[in-house]
Amino acid sequence: MKRIFFTPGPSQLLPRVPGYLNEAIGQGIPSLSHRSEEFRSIYKDTASGIRKVLGAPDGMHVFFMGSATEAMERIIQNCVEKESFHFVNGAFSARFFKIAQLLGKNPIKIESPMGNPFDFSSVDIPKSAELICITQNETSIGIAIKPENINRLKKDHPNALLAVDIVSCAPMVELDYSQVDMAFFSVQKCFGLPAGLGVLLANDRALQRSKELQTKGVSIGSYHNFQWMAEDEIKFQTPETPNVLAIYLLGRVCAQFLQKGIERVRADCDEKAALLYGFFDAHPLFHPFIEDRSSRSKTVIVIAAPQGSQPIIKKLKERGLVIGSGYSEYRERQFRIANFPAHSKDQMRALLDAISTLS
Amino acid sequence: MKRIFFTPGPSQLLPRVPGYLNEAIGQGIPSLSHRSEEFRSIYKDTASGIRKVLGAPDGMHVFFMGSATEAMERIIQNCVEKESFHFVNGAFSARFFKIAQLLGKNPIKIESPMGNPFDFSSVDIPKSAELICITQNETSIGIAIKPENINRLKKDHPNALLAVDIVSCAPMVELDYSQVDMAFFSVQKCFGLPAGLGVLLANDRALQRSKELQTKGVSIGSYHNFQWMAEDEIKFQTPETPNVLAIYLLGRVCAQFLQKGIERVRADCDEKAALLYGFFDAHPLFHPFIEDRSSRSKTVIVIAAPQGSQPIIKKLKERGLVIGSGYSEYRERQFRIANFPAHSKDQMRALLDAISTLS
Repeated sequence: MKRIFFTPGPSQLLPRVPGYLNEAIGQGIPSLSHRSEEFRSIYKDTASGIRKVLGAPDGMHVFFMGSATEAMERIIQNCVEKESFHFVNGAFSARFFKIAQLLGKNPIKIESPMGNPFDFSSVDIPKSAELICITQNETSIGIAIKPENINRLKKDHPNALLAVDIVSCAPMVELDYSQVDMAFFSVQKCFGLPAGLGVLLANDRALQRSKELQTKGVSIGSYHNFQWMAEDEIKFQTPETPNVLAIYLLGRVCAQFLQKGIERVRADCDEKAALLYGFFDAHPLFHPFIEDRSSRSKTVIVIAAPQGSQPIIKKLKERGLVIGSGYSEYRERQFRIANFPAHSKDQMRALLDAISTLS
Repeated sequence: MKRIFFTPGPSQLLPRVPGYLNEAIGQGIPSLSHRSEEFRSIYKDTASGIRKVLGAPDGMHVFFMGSATEAMERIIQNCVEKESFHFVNGAFSARFFKIAQLLGKNPIKIESPMGNPFDFSSVDIPKSAELICITQNETSIGIAIKPENINRLKKDHPNALLAVDIVSCAPMVELDYSQVDMAFFSVQKCFGLPAGLGVLLANDRALQRSKELQTKGVSIGSYHNFQWMAEDEIKFQTPETPNVLAIYLLGRVCAQFLQKGIERVRADCDEKAALLYGFFDAHPLFHPFIEDRSSRSKTVIVIAAPQGSQPIIKKLKERGLVIGSGYSEYRERQFRIANFPAHSKDQMRALLDAISTLS
């Protein structure tokens, strides 16, 4: 049976990705040396495409790594001597905090009651915080932070670095990247690709900080410290043999988004999000977990199922429609639906029709 | 023009890999949640396949990561408080040493004059060394260490852990893995796959050491420390979203090797290595860089070209035959030919014929 994956990542591949993959194989991309001219050209094109789809400044460095979780580790290692500050509102922001703890830092957090937005007017970030970490879109519970609240953090705290987790919202969310020092995402969400590549954007300020820490004798890691990565990036190379194929595919997907127009890509996402939330707001059994409408994620729709989520997940699966369970402790009481560019409006309608019929 | 890649990795894909890739896409493998039952079954099968093709004990843990370089970092972080000991005979063993330095350890090394084997009878490894690091097959200059010398290290130094870099020789080299605490490889060498996955095998002794260091307050890293990875491995999962597709493909390749018989896979490699070395031993212009025949790598054949290597590399490339340059400072004076299972005997003969004609 052919399945459609509405899971919050890994998820459905963009329809053109299998074609890109076969073109890559035909051209020998997976066999290219990562020191070759051809690979350097791929790195350059993909990095440029990423900056364009996000609207990030030309000067932002683009580093490739294994996963977004790795990006969290590298950010803490390279930018924090003692203290980071974390907005924690779900499992992934909690993970960022935990990584800082495991690396022997002294992270501080503000937590919002699960599913509720932060009150930015009352957040007290200590002056001693070297880095502020925030998750724009919490893949675990589907809560999103308004871009204006992120853009303002830098103005209010000019001495701290700002790192934004855009794992499951890039490139849908429009941030002012001149106000962001680091941002990171993975490719199995909105970019509709197989998992196995994390992307970290970092500006010169972040690199400068990494250099200062290194000079002070703080361990900033080894082959993936910002200094070593930047030395290779100048040559459009990476310290290690990277996921060449995924870097190539990501470049193709960025080009596809740019050709369509990123505004159009975002508008499609908004339209499908409105369809989904409209449906569940009116549903007798299920309702959006995030009550505050302006804090609802457009890309990961989390639905509360007070009478249990597993029966509907199972019934949909039998029809080849794969949605996600609730994350961790919400497994039995929520389900999650990804709304990525790989999901067409027709597929969304078909999913909602099936939910109507089966619930 | 269709190209054949004899580069030392990334290299030619195994002929069946494009088929496996398309099967994976057809089955929705790249869309599977890394928390799903289906993924867990893939992890289990691939880990089991890896242990079988290598001949590693059942109890050895199999951890997936971004690259073999990452494996070096994780080994140092998790197994060394102060001092590691490194056999350095090329660029990759030097990298292992450098990573230990960057992580703030106090690594000690023995270096062999470039291209010469170590004299194991005179190597003096201090009792204080917590970890011995050795590179069985140096991809940079094509020198290999005899398995018996590696198997004996443990007997002579029972209190140190032993980590073996088998990046470009696994599963061709036959080691006694009961005498090895950790070994690591990447998939773009002998396994004939696209790059983007590193595999680390570690035994309980290595995990115990990691636990001891953590208890002592030594930083062992975060999401990829041995403790966190082992917690997920019990469930056949990974801390982060891994390269699911590559893990699947690696399982398929292991199954293919096992079906053919690993002895036969190794015999094919030996046969082609004999063909290559025989040819270059008799060549008027080129000769194997490693003079000691028993130290010659069977998988990465490094050839000295005293009159310059770039002209022949260029001429072969024009015919669609892509070989590697010498590594780093040897770029202009050496070339490298990979001898992996993806390279058939006929392709090797065609390459040597072309070299005869063009040189």
